[in-house]
Amino acid sequence: MAKINENYLKLQAGYLFPEIGRRVSSFCESHPQADIIKMGIGDVTQPLVPAIVAAMHAAVDEMAVKETFRGYGPEQGYGFLREAIARNDYQDRGVDVQPDEIFVSDGSKCDSGNLLDIFGSDNRIAVLDPVYPVYVDTNVMAGHTGPADKNGRYANLVYLPVTAESDFQPPLPEVPVDLIYLCYPNNPTGTVLTREALEKWVAFAKEHQAIIFYDAAYEAYISDPDIPRSIYEIPGGREVAIELRSFSKTAGFTGIRSAHLR
Amino acid sequence: MAKINENYLKLQAGYLFPEIGRRVSSFCESHPQADIIKMGIGDVTQPLVPAIVAAMHAAVDEMAVKETFRGYGPEQGYGFLREAIARNDYQDRGVDVQPDEIFVSDGSKCDSGNLLDIFGSDNRIAVLDPVYPVYVDTNVMAGHTGPADKNGRYANLVYLPVTAESDFQPPLPEVPVDLIYLCYPNNPTGTVLTREALEKWVAFAKEHQAIIFYDAAYEAYISDPDIPRSIYEIPGGREVAIELRSFSKTAGFTGIRSAHLR
Repeated sequence: MAKINENYLKLQAGYLFPEIGRRVSSFCESHPQADIIKMGIGDVTQPLVPAIVAAMHAAVDEMAVKETFRGYGPEQGYGFLREAIARNDYQDRGVDVQPDEIFVSDGSKCDSGNLLDIFGSDNRIAVLDPVYPVYVDTNVMAGHTGPADKNGRYANLVYLPVTAESDFQPPLPEVPVDLIYLCYPNNPTGTVLTREALEKWVAFAKEHQAIIFYDAAYEAYISDPDIPRSIYEIPGGREVAIELRSFSKTAGFTGIRSAHLR
Repeated sequence: MAKINENYLKLQAGYLFPEIGRRVSSFCESHPQADIIKMGIGDVTQPLVPAIVAAMHAAVDEMAVKETFRGYGPEQGYGFLREAIARNDYQDRGVDVQPDEIFVSDGSKCDSGNLLDIFGSDNRIAVLDPVYPVYVDTNVMAGHTGPADKNGRYANLVYLPVTAESDFQPPLPEVPVDLIYLCYPNNPTGTVLTREALEKWVAFAKEHQAIIFYDAAYEAYISDPDIPRSIYEIPGGREVAIELRSFSKTAGFTGIRSAHLR
């Protein structure tokens, strides 16, 4: 008899969003005049920009003619795209990343889940709290956690609190951990890590031979030149981190699934 | 210290294609005048057809204007597409499949691997032999097999030989199995299953409460009306099978990653 993956039964996805819904409903009832801006699950509101529309039309035309039809693309992504990413996102900012270190994908949400496949099932995993739920749920589904407690926190995960009391700077883990999820600029708090703080994380990872999943999906929103856009700006970052980036969050490309990682 | 997924070390991907390469080289040396047509890893040679090119341009234009921009699509696929698939691929052929049973994806290769996530790690798995390597390798990576033997066959998998002696019809498993991969029209042999043969598979699955992964990626190539295009044409098929289909193999759409499953 076919057996299902019973780890799915641990999922608390039924927990967070219904709870948000209940609180919003309750608030609306007690404040009927309030004009609520819902900032839960997002969606995009603006169309693609003209340069991207033109490039997409050109790509379709290329596929329409035998002379320029590309057939199956390389699984790591087209060379011209990986070169452009290495040059524009990294090298032009003084960061050493080569084209053959880039993997182009269909979205950083998928990447953050699929990445777990290459790691063993016996790693101790640290996440920030609050956390982008995909990091947790993919580990739950893969059987890397125990059941959730009444607050929705899973056994065997190390939660690092991000609170106003510590100025939204997460503490380093007090126990050795093997895989660390950092998302900066942070989803959901919108906070950033200073260069000094990120240096401490890289040093921690080196000391414990841990791997950092550095989700920089929102890096395009950084305007302060003192805030690192990439963990590879930090000496030693190349040795300890896999960086995830997204084209879907960038002005002009929202709503299209496209991403890359190194 | 971060631990890797050591199941990857069992992979024999280094086995099949280098072996094909060695045999081709050896044959070329001994037959220098031979004109070799290589039928190993395929690629596509024809561009997209005009109707698909026009639809892609229209879709890009839709995303370019605020009034028609769609934002994030539903994760199961757009309703209009699921309705068209249910109607054209199934209902118009008398097969009961509803739009809300369809899941649109980025390719049936990914699907055949990702599908394993929803099943437990303690299923006995049957594959045809020869087999499309993705079915085997995804199970190896997920830790569902033991190591490979010297012929590249993995412990804990049930291999069902497809040979000329049995007219390329695979035997039913002699032991109970839980998950069964069937690919028809078959990759790599190009053979098909008759209705009677497929009925036996459905009966076997019902008897053992097994699930059939029915990969019908090449169904568009069936011209004989007596050969089933879908396992759901078989009474009881709906209860025991997940069917995978691909748009990437169909005339006019080759080279684009798009698929669906039910």
